Amino acid sequence: MAHMLAEIRQQPQVLARTLDSALRSASRLRALLERDRARLRPRLVVLAARGSSDNAAQFGRYLIEVATGIPVSLAAPSVETLYRARVDYRNALVVGISQSGESPDIRRVLERAQRAGAMTVGITNVAGSPLTRVADHVFLVRAGREKSVAATKTYTGQLMALYLLAHALGARIPVDRFRTIPALAEAALTLDPQVAAFAARYTYMRHAVVIGRGLNYGNAQEFALKLMETSYVVAERFSSADFLHGPIAMVEPRFPAFLFAPGGPVRGSIRSILSRLRTLDAETVTITDESNAGVARLATKSLVIPADIPELLSPIPYIVPSQLFAAHLAREKNLDPDRPRSLTKVTRTL
Amino acid sequence: MAHMLAEIRQQPQVLARTLDSALRSASRLRALLERDRARLRPRLVVLAARGSSDNAAQFGRYLIEVATGIPVSLAAPSVETLYRARVDYRNALVVGISQSGESPDIRRVLERAQRAGAMTVGITNVAGSPLTRVADHVFLVRAGREKSVAATKTYTGQLMALYLLAHALGARIPVDRFRTIPALAEAALTLDPQVAAFAARYTYMRHAVVIGRGLNYGNAQEFALKLMETSYVVAERFSSADFLHGPIAMVEPRFPAFLFAPGGPVRGSIRSILSRLRTLDAETVTITDESNAGVARLATKSLVIPADIPELLSPIPYIVPSQLFAAHLAREKNLDPDRPRSLTKVTRTL
Repeated sequence: MAHMLAEIRQQPQVLARTLDSALRSASRLRALLERDRARLRPRLVVLAARGSSDNAAQFGRYLIEVATGIPVSLAAPSVETLYRARVDYRNALVVGISQSGESPDIRRVLERAQRAGAMTVGITNVAGSPLTRVADHVFLVRAGREKSVAATKTYTGQLMALYLLAHALGARIPVDRFRTIPALAEAALTLDPQVAAFAARYTYMRHAVVIGRGLNYGNAQEFALKLMETSYVVAERFSSADFLHGPIAMVEPRFPAFLFAPGGPVRGSIRSILSRLRTLDAETVTITDESNAGVARLATKSLVIPADIPELLSPIPYIVPSQLFAAHLAREKNLDPDRPRSLTKVTRTL
Repeated sequence: MAHMLAEIRQQPQVLARTLDSALRSASRLRALLERDRARLRPRLVVLAARGSSDNAAQFGRYLIEVATGIPVSLAAPSVETLYRARVDYRNALVVGISQSGESPDIRRVLERAQRAGAMTVGITNVAGSPLTRVADHVFLVRAGREKSVAATKTYTGQLMALYLLAHALGARIPVDRFRTIPALAEAALTLDPQVAAFAARYTYMRHAVVIGRGLNYGNAQEFALKLMETSYVVAERFSSADFLHGPIAMVEPRFPAFLFAPGGPVRGSIRSILSRLRTLDAETVTITDESNAGVARLATKSLVIPADIPELLSPIPYIVPSQLFAAHLAREKNLDPDRPRSLTKVTRTL
């Protein structure tokens, strides 16, 4: 518990450090892409990851398609590791994301992609890890050592690295906008006392759904994962559109649903699902900011980050209250989120 | 209830009919691709779908990469419908899958992809539906009208159409192998009395996980969706690798886990997760066949399809016992799977 909460609170500094180092990596990658004209614009970006890193990849999937127009695919590692297929990765950029840099499956995907003609990028917290030795190009997350098994600062650090990767691939977002993110994360941290008081209500919650859309869909996956691993809640994750195609049938009175509710393009979609959930008498908790605070009227409870946050920059500050919630809920349940049962910090799968 | 069970039982005939019609579509598509040499091999296949059709797309994602080596991406429709990004789909084949052919988001993805230079394919149950009017090329699922809200025969029909799409894209699988699938589905249907007797045990099950890998990962999603929509079970779905990266912490004694356990490349991965779950004293139910029946020794319960099923052909017969299970569980709970609460047959999202 001590570690998880401390690491959540380190995020503004981690983000500032990671922004600096990822900016340098982005410039180098951009120079490399420009030297080789054929590679200037990869025809495809493939993101390969597991666990929290895969939730970061979900964010990257939306960000890169929306901001650069390059099609993105989330790799299915078993295609390479178990089926041993040869996928045609010519002119593709294949990105492995791994906190420890030790995932053998992610490494294998990168090695095989290289042989098939791809340029490869590694995003990791550990300099000198196996992933950095395989990848053509490395973005280092400058999180320092993460002691809690539950990933927090490495997850937001990976999101920051992905913003800079999109920048290297030609996204037209001024770098100065990324510089506001550490302060937005700081604003989100001010919700800590409110979240701590609020978590008790959910002590006996056995299941829940978490809903996000677009750039915050990865956050829905990450919040659900945090609830599963730190508090043993059976937490499902959905995009708001997918939720309407079947899963909404589960909802009965007081069924708990957590929703990421930013302004911008996804605003209407989240509002309409909130209205549907209200008619079903569900319990809804929204994470939002001052630019969309009106959404609170549709929800049972709302955590409003005291800042005006453009949707493009919302994923990092928005995950912070949910990290706090998972940590405080674990405390209410007398569990130790630093050491969840059945888990170790580094998971090796093929 | 009457409709869902009847439609599950129609699947062998539906599959045989769909195979015939999809074979003709595949030949036409192949001829078209061969006429235009540049298009002979798309650089990328994009699959766009929602709900059960999206679970079919998950299967297609593995099948096409494994069998043809062409990279596959599952579309995130909101990139087009909400963010209005222009994704570079030159030389891509973009495939929309929709039972009713009416999903406005899937149609929108196809229209925008066409304008960006893609060739488009529609897979649907309804001739003359909006999707067939948009797509350059159509694969018709010959399921007849599906009256139950819970999709069954249209889902397996979509899997059959995807086999033939892979064939059209150059997969080296003799067509005669697909002809064995209706008989394998028939063999799976013989488990009906066993499943009917067995479902009662789970009447008070509130949550569960469903695990599948590779070609059966889409089935894990589909089984979970069936449990959610027909029996209101909070059912999570995972690949066996992702399950180890966090969610396994939820597992306590008697926690119910359903696993698709075919032979072939994923055999070891499923066996090792079964062993892990055994040490945690979880309740495990495997769906398997005679070629891998030994796996039953590791599981609490096993449903063994009386046939020898190659992993490549397992997804269609393997989903049948889980469809039966969802229908019988709904009956035990006195619910009507033909008309789940909060749902209608056609869901329109953007």
